[in-house]
Amino acid sequence: MIEDKNQEKTGLDQLGEFELIKHLTKDFTIQHKSTLKGIGDDAAVLDFKDKKAIISTDLLIEGVHFDLSYMPLKHLGYKSVMVNLSDIYAMNATATQITVSIAVSNRFPLEALEEFYSGVALACEVYKIDLVGGDTTSSTKGMLVSVTVIGEAAEENIVYRSGAKPNDLLVVSGDLGAAYCGLQVLEREKEVFKVNPNNQPDLSPYTYIVERQLKPEARRDVKELLDKLEIRPTSMIDISDGLSSEILHLCDKSEVGCNLFEDKIPLDPTVISACEEFKMDSTLVALSGGEDYELLFTIDQKDFLKIKGNPHFTVVGHMTDKNEGVNLISRSNTKIPITAQGWNSFS
Amino acid sequence: MIEDKNQEKTGLDQLGEFELIKHLTKDFTIQHKSTLKGIGDDAAVLDFKDKKAIISTDLLIEGVHFDLSYMPLKHLGYKSVMVNLSDIYAMNATATQITVSIAVSNRFPLEALEEFYSGVALACEVYKIDLVGGDTTSSTKGMLVSVTVIGEAAEENIVYRSGAKPNDLLVVSGDLGAAYCGLQVLEREKEVFKVNPNNQPDLSPYTYIVERQLKPEARRDVKELLDKLEIRPTSMIDISDGLSSEILHLCDKSEVGCNLFEDKIPLDPTVISACEEFKMDSTLVALSGGEDYELLFTIDQKDFLKIKGNPHFTVVGHMTDKNEGVNLISRSNTKIPITAQGWNSFS
Repeated sequence: MIEDKNQEKTGLDQLGEFELIKHLTKDFTIQHKSTLKGIGDDAAVLDFKDKKAIISTDLLIEGVHFDLSYMPLKHLGYKSVMVNLSDIYAMNATATQITVSIAVSNRFPLEALEEFYSGVALACEVYKIDLVGGDTTSSTKGMLVSVTVIGEAAEENIVYRSGAKPNDLLVVSGDLGAAYCGLQVLEREKEVFKVNPNNQPDLSPYTYIVERQLKPEARRDVKELLDKLEIRPTSMIDISDGLSSEILHLCDKSEVGCNLFEDKIPLDPTVISACEEFKMDSTLVALSGGEDYELLFTIDQKDFLKIKGNPHFTVVGHMTDKNEGVNLISRSNTKIPITAQGWNSFS
Repeated sequence: MIEDKNQEKTGLDQLGEFELIKHLTKDFTIQHKSTLKGIGDDAAVLDFKDKKAIISTDLLIEGVHFDLSYMPLKHLGYKSVMVNLSDIYAMNATATQITVSIAVSNRFPLEALEEFYSGVALACEVYKIDLVGGDTTSSTKGMLVSVTVIGEAAEENIVYRSGAKPNDLLVVSGDLGAAYCGLQVLEREKEVFKVNPNNQPDLSPYTYIVERQLKPEARRDVKELLDKLEIRPTSMIDISDGLSSEILHLCDKSEVGCNLFEDKIPLDPTVISACEEFKMDSTLVALSGGEDYELLFTIDQKDFLKIKGNPHFTVVGHMTDKNEGVNLISRSNTKIPITAQGWNSFS
């Protein structure tokens, strides 16, 4: 959180817009044969051959989606890519290219943008993504990031939100609620820092949850894991706004109901202890916290034995007839209708 | 410029983010067979078959790229699409899909977003584009728009910036400088309005230039016109930042020089009279004004007779060896090196 104000900084007005983008993207290399032309023309040219192209886009705004007082710019670059990749993986597809557009006010020096792009570059390297375009411009206030991600998939492998049937099992990858808990820790430390800027916070007990907030990983591995298990999900979505909101999307698009079992929701021990510390209900955090970037999917009952006991996946419920509604079955065996309480930037 | 403050307005917080996007996009229909899945899942699914996919993206920020005091929201929606389509046409490709993301502060009611989307819808209808995705979120200040456009082309038809050879002719579609002149008129009327809000401006003498600023059209027809003339450009770029900046890009990527003839630059009579009125040099306006969204391309000399006298196209110069540099040949036959003076949002 402490910025060294004495470092040499380069004003963005010293470079033109084209020089700037050239400078920021000079170390990016093209890894995919499908990228015929990346940065440097009016548009990128991609070749999907007999595969289908998958496209998704997300907008991240300073003060709404991120807070630079505790989000290092390199992490923001990395996370901006992850948020988008997650949507492609939720289609059971492979992410291949991205475009990254940013707008920044004049308080950002060149070095800040270099930091941001180093995070983008790391994400591209680890996840094997080609940066093929973007736009760099000024804003009147703060920073904003717009990423569009492109992926590919054989048509028969694409999984939509709409394929779930009654009796399908509802499965989640990883664990939930950690990113939201991490956010609470960071917000608290920000307040402490305001009062005493010399206080050095000890975040070590919160490493996992803080990392889930600042440097989430998109679940590229889920497709591979399921392929090995010879399971093809009947429907899938990524968990960006909280479990309840995503379950409602699956049920809406698939025209089914759902029973979600509270005692099955996977929670990391750090999440449970953070919830105790912050006096939050851990189920509510998992249902409405958001930013987990795990995958939520349904599988046919016949695949249950293939997935049972797998450390990557947890069966959290099953789909029902539509008229049974969408319900949480609580620990005390009460049926509670699930309503959307996911994150809404307008409220 | 006058807003009726008494109309009933609907706060965006009354709808959730998903309801909002559903509401705004409900009247959009899918026109292309290549759009297998549009809005409504984690990502769109597109099928390019044996064609290549062309992708470009642009960011528009209130207070930097547009001024809502004279830019009606419907026009902004239309223009946001045009700005992007232009990049696809500059590849000699067909635009087929877009994603539109917007962020707005809480001063914007639902009705404002409906206006914006009605402009997007009109552009999609006229240019036969499928809206396949996007993101709608809140901002801490003003409005911003991020559009990604997707197109398709047979590989052999794609025209890059890099194909120009010495002795190729430099050709421009339409005329230049009008959008910049229109901006001057609108900026002047804004100042008049500030002093006397009851003054009703008579913009009729400026219809053409104001329309070029507020409702530009991307040159989808150029590909068709050139196909009929059996001309394939050797290089192409769209004119968004001013003729000088775009010529420098073509010369840089093609590794050639250029002689541009001042007396050949196509100017509408309204531009000439506006330049006189505003005491601006019309050549400088064409070179550096920007936002014309015309196409600049090079053709082989053998195609000269095919294009000579065509009302859509003007030969403005020719390419040279790289070591001859990039020059404007003035009316008085002086050779002046062209330097980038296009619009730069950071300066």
